[in-house]
Amino acid sequence: MFSPLIKELIESLRCLPGVGPKSAQKMALYLLEREHQGADRLASALRNALDKVGRCSSCRTLTEESECSICRDEERDATRLCIVETPADVIAIESAGTFDGRYFVLLGHLSPIDGIGPEELGLEHLEKMVEYNQVEEAIIATNSTVEGEATCHYIAEKLKSKNINVSRIAHGVPMGGELEYVDGNTLALALEGRKKL
Amino acid sequence: MFSPLIKELIESLRCLPGVGPKSAQKMALYLLEREHQGADRLASALRNALDKVGRCSSCRTLTEESECSICRDEERDATRLCIVETPADVIAIESAGTFDGRYFVLLGHLSPIDGIGPEELGLEHLEKMVEYNQVEEAIIATNSTVEGEATCHYIAEKLKSKNINVSRIAHGVPMGGELEYVDGNTLALALEGRKKL
Ligand SMILES: [Zn+2]
Ligand SMILES: [Zn+2]
Repeated sequence: MFSPLIKELIESLRCLPGVGPKSAQKMALYLLEREHQGADRLASALRNALDKVGRCSSCRTLTEESECSICRDEERDATRLCIVETPADVIAIESAGTFDGRYFVLLGHLSPIDGIGPEELGLEHLEKMVEYNQVEEAIIATNSTVEGEATCHYIAEKLKSKNINVSRIAHGVPMGGELEYVDGNTLALALEGRKKL
Repeated sequence: MFSPLIKELIESLRCLPGVGPKSAQKMALYLLEREHQGADRLASALRNALDKVGRCSSCRTLTEESECSICRDEERDATRLCIVETPADVIAIESAGTFDGRYFVLLGHLSPIDGIGPEELGLEHLEKMVEYNQVEEAIIATNSTVEGEATCHYIAEKLKSKNINVSRIAHGVPMGGELEYVDGNTLALALEGRKKL
């Protein structure tokens, strides 16, 4: 019953996480009925981000800059490295406010079934970075899910062969939970209680 | 902590109904981490819809065509007119499957506080259309909210002066509810039980 362009808008909104047919329809009509300005801004922001956002040449987080703001920050201790799955995890740990080292962002976890191996996670780049920055301590803060633990184990084996301290973020983080939803205090405790691997 | 373009994407996603800061962040990272194709499609669909979707020259529903598919359909009875608030309401009534007339879409309701008066709802256009199509019966199916009832009352007074049958969709529709969320059967009953005003 909707015209082709409205149908296409509804369909394409379905790519957003948690958006089903009914909310996609509601969103499309809302934007067209009374939020042209917001929709215009969203279309431009999407296009811009798609065209320009890539990965930090150092930590591989998402950014349109060649190096992200944390990697550019001279005050941060480059010899301590926290390894996380996603940019949202960086934000979560930063909000805990107790870690002053740098990050490495895997943008995923090992998942052979989805074709995600060490190469897709940039683990060769990680090893080079560890050597280049003379990293002394690596804290692995992948999620406490099955895949996150497997990824942790794989990375730990790689890094321990380099004679650096490798630790796992403490399980103050609830098992099965996703890092980005844990509160700052729990994360601060989890960082403090890390165990050598 | 996010780069400017990612921040801007997160901010601009907030214009979507029901999307708070946390889901906007989740959506933005999801799109950039693993849904480039969907994001690209969404950016284009938004841009296209914004550039091209306007209003049907006849019923004023949202469409990029000069006349919408219902108004173009010769099989539909132009002498019977159902007046609704939004395009979603047209879809809801069509799904009931018992109405074979045409629609007039207000795209809102009278709301002096928001500066929405008879002109914004196209009520002059409605009167012309009623005359032009020699409408014999108008069914007012605005929402059963305070604003919807006030809008109904205003339109009914205008149309009754033209010597046509003006009715209100029956209140099988739950009071205070929004039309687009009512099931087809209830809507079919509500249409059948309409009362002359
Ligand atoms: Zn970086
Ligand atoms: Zn039309």
